[in-house]
Amino acid sequence: MNAHDRPLRVALLGCGVVGTEVARRLTRDADELAQRVGAPLELVGIAVRNLDTPRDLDVPAELFTDDAAALVRRGDLDIVVEVVGGIEPAGDLIRAALEHGASVVTANKALLADQGADLFEAADKAQRDLSFEAAIAGAIPIVRPLRESLAGDRIRRVLGIVNGTTNYILDQMTTLGQTFDEALAEAQRLGYAEADPTADVEGHDAAAKAALLAGLAFHTHLTLDDVHCEGITSVTADAVQSAAEMGSVVKLLAICEQIDTPDGPAVGARVHPAMVPLSHPLASVRGAYNAVFVESEAAGELMFYGPGAGGAPTASAVLGDIVSAARNRASDVFGPGETSHADVRLLPIGSAHTQYHLVIEVDDRAGVLAIIAQEFARFGVSIKTLRQEGLGSDARLIIVTHEAEDASLAATVEILRGLEVVRDVSSVMRVEGGS
Amino acid sequence: MNAHDRPLRVALLGCGVVGTEVARRLTRDADELAQRVGAPLELVGIAVRNLDTPRDLDVPAELFTDDAAALVRRGDLDIVVEVVGGIEPAGDLIRAALEHGASVVTANKALLADQGADLFEAADKAQRDLSFEAAIAGAIPIVRPLRESLAGDRIRRVLGIVNGTTNYILDQMTTLGQTFDEALAEAQRLGYAEADPTADVEGHDAAAKAALLAGLAFHTHLTLDDVHCEGITSVTADAVQSAAEMGSVVKLLAICEQIDTPDGPAVGARVHPAMVPLSHPLASVRGAYNAVFVESEAAGELMFYGPGAGGAPTASAVLGDIVSAARNRASDVFGPGETSHADVRLLPIGSAHTQYHLVIEVDDRAGVLAIIAQEFARFGVSIKTLRQEGLGSDARLIIVTHEAEDASLAATVEILRGLEVVRDVSSVMRVEGGS
Ligand SMILES: NC(=O)c1ccc[n+]([C@@H]2O[C@H](COP(=O)([O-])OP(=O)(O)OC[C@H]3O[C@@H](n4cnc5c(N)ncnc54)[C@H](OP(=O)(O)O)[C@@H]3O)[C@@H](O)[C@H]2O)c1
Ligand SMILES: NC(=O)c1ccc[n+]([C@@H]2O[C@H](COP(=O)([O-])OP(=O)(O)OC[C@H]3O[C@@H](n4cnc5c(N)ncnc54)[C@H](OP(=O)(O)O)[C@@H]3O)[C@@H](O)[C@H]2O)c1
Repeated sequence: MNAHDRPLRVALLGCGVVGTEVARRLTRDADELAQRVGAPLELVGIAVRNLDTPRDLDVPAELFTDDAAALVRRGDLDIVVEVVGGIEPAGDLIRAALEHGASVVTANKALLADQGADLFEAADKAQRDLSFEAAIAGAIPIVRPLRESLAGDRIRRVLGIVNGTTNYILDQMTTLGQTFDEALAEAQRLGYAEADPTADVEGHDAAAKAALLAGLAFHTHLTLDDVHCEGITSVTADAVQSAAEMGSVVKLLAICEQIDTPDGPAVGARVHPAMVPLSHPLASVRGAYNAVFVESEAAGELMFYGPGAGGAPTASAVLGDIVSAARNRASDVFGPGETSHADVRLLPIGSAHTQYHLVIEVDDRAGVLAIIAQEFARFGVSIKTLRQEGLGSDARLIIVTHEAEDASLAATVEILRGLEVVRDVSSVMRVEGGS
Repeated sequence: MNAHDRPLRVALLGCGVVGTEVARRLTRDADELAQRVGAPLELVGIAVRNLDTPRDLDVPAELFTDDAAALVRRGDLDIVVEVVGGIEPAGDLIRAALEHGASVVTANKALLADQGADLFEAADKAQRDLSFEAAIAGAIPIVRPLRESLAGDRIRRVLGIVNGTTNYILDQMTTLGQTFDEALAEAQRLGYAEADPTADVEGHDAAAKAALLAGLAFHTHLTLDDVHCEGITSVTADAVQSAAEMGSVVKLLAICEQIDTPDGPAVGARVHPAMVPLSHPLASVRGAYNAVFVESEAAGELMFYGPGAGGAPTASAVLGDIVSAARNRASDVFGPGETSHADVRLLPIGSAHTQYHLVIEVDDRAGVLAIIAQEFARFGVSIKTLRQEGLGSDARLIIVTHEAEDASLAATVEILRGLEVVRDVSSVMRVEGGS
């Protein structure tokens, strides 16, 4: 490649946590990046909301603008980097950038899980790249491995810890015995959780990533609405303790799977807390780290591990996409786009095969076990392990089921709750990653 | 993309463990692969050594030939897959394939660590792809992540468990307390080690991969001769035990690092056994699994984990490369090639900064410690932890040093061996992955 090609013009939309790091590295590492691309990258504009915000960046003041819409319509841009976040104007800005001839790099999972199909079609029509490595699991290279390295394999299942905030909270609950509220407060104090933690703790952020992962793994399109989503707000210290007792740890998992059904293949995507045995590689993912575990037919079990967020790690992923997009622009080609050729049905959560871990507070008298066992049998759910604990008003059963349809498991729990001998089903959690 | 484009012609060189799986999947998954490429892949020839060998494959007999040299010169091939192994004729076959217009996919680390510079130049000249995802750590996607995803980052260090045979042997020694010979025999019985295990246990296979990893990570070219290589044949059950006592585990590591020296950046690559603390993600890589741990400036710490060998896993990586190469051939472009723009010096092992773990058998008398400590001080090596064990003729010191130049550490050990108060330095092992 030739380093004396024409410079490639890059515009940055957003200069916050991620954008600042991207701008810093584009400037500081200009020579090295030019070598890797084969042509210099020229930062020609930075759109922000507020021009008066002081920025810790050594770039000419005239690069800044508060008119992002005009910037993406300049017509001479090669690459637009969208790190504004949110749905609008981000979506419109990306569409305009593509229409005006730029390839786009984005870190915006929320937008892609909402309008992905439309945006990838726009990229396809414009014959430009729309890359989003930073949108899933921050710095961890996962888009290229799924889309390219495993392009000749059949992915069966993807299990991801894709939200650092919730992994940090669950980790604190596990190692320090904190309650959810205590761990959340600590995470907020340390900046791992935002003041409004809803998107993280309710699982919405992980669900957006699950939609993207499922799309990549199974060559289809999913939106946020297609993902069954349960957060971690109802994970109790007891449940975490109970997991520890059975040699497991509680993780918030994003699970994408393809199942063969009598009506052909179906794809399911769900986010929920689950007990993961300590022997599983995902169990040792600590703190705010992320990891994506992939089960595929030929390659077997793969795991990708690293920091899932933060300015510098996310910028690393963004810059990797910028270099690829720039190489493509320099030779006027575009990379493999979104594949959505697979005609797969959506698998509702009820049809997923899962295992349940239950804590059932029961009356301490003869015959209770038989009554409960009968209900499990009635729904075709078989019990894998059962432990009785406590006496009198403290008596409880701790049950782990074998795999069954989630709907049957849920129905069993519903019925159990109504039984006269059951005082409470105090904890219900799925078990994943077992054998 | 359009699935009705002209078929892309693929020739397979070698039909052994890997080749058989590649051929099987090319045939069985033809429709799915055509979707992913945008054009059908047509297997037009398979070269083997012996046409009479029965093959467990459902492909037309007339595809087989024992004239690989003629096959690669057909002139109408889009992709040649080299899974013959060895240096020649593999190297000549690849060169001929490129010259005759085909992109090449290879799993041959030995060849690339020997003739990489020459072969990548040939690919560049021919404007064709030369891909080798399967050559490093089998199924684990590592080439694309290093070359593309991290293209905007600065990699500092790569630590890899890249040989499954030796990891299996060390794992057996750790968990079952076996000796090296016992574990090797078991590995041979189970097919994890070959009848002649030299390439694995002496570290040569890992060293070839280290050369490739260093080249990718630091944009330069290394050959096998540039890699300092120590195998695991002298790892004793005692050393493994001693590692366990300090909360570590012995792993054969391939280490590639870039160091800033007063004369500019220098790159070092080495393979040797090392004690890795249990808290490090590499410590939990069990059995014949592989993993590559990457430390980079912006992304921080990443790890890629999966099966490092085997027919199906390796075929997965080969097929991923075939799909990419086919997409490129279909639009007559070629992907980012080898980058060797970096002008870096080679860092000799003596200049690497390492930590030593030593077991020193000493005379059990007053003043011995002072004599030994003085020798460490003389070489500027500072002691991090020291433990005295045993009495009388069993007395020994277990010492872990702070980081120092490997040359100083080695020199210290040399001097210690000659001291009158030292009966033996019975174990010397480097420590990696600590803080
Ligand atoms: N932070 C992470 O660790 C992380 C990790 C992975 C992915 N992401 C994704 O990366 C994106 C950016 O995240 P962030 O943390 O960098 O956000 P941030 O710190 O809130 O920064 C957002 C930036 O966008 C600018 N902006 C907002 N509205 C705008 C508008 N209408 N026109 C022009 N500029 C506008 C803001 O300008 P002002 O500076 O003037 O307010 C600010 O510079 C999001 O999609 C997020 O999901 C972030
Ligand atoms: N096996 C693994 O797990 C693994 C993992 C990663 C990388 N790799 C690499 O993949 C490559 C192949 O390994 P493998 O295990 O598949 O080897 P293998 O089982 O020994 O197969 C070698 C194949 O090459 C054929 N062959 C040998 N010399 C030939 C020649 N001069 N012309 C044409 N064909 C010739 C053989 O033909 P016959 O069948 O007629 O003898 C055989 O089909 C090697 O570079 C290896 O390092 C292997």
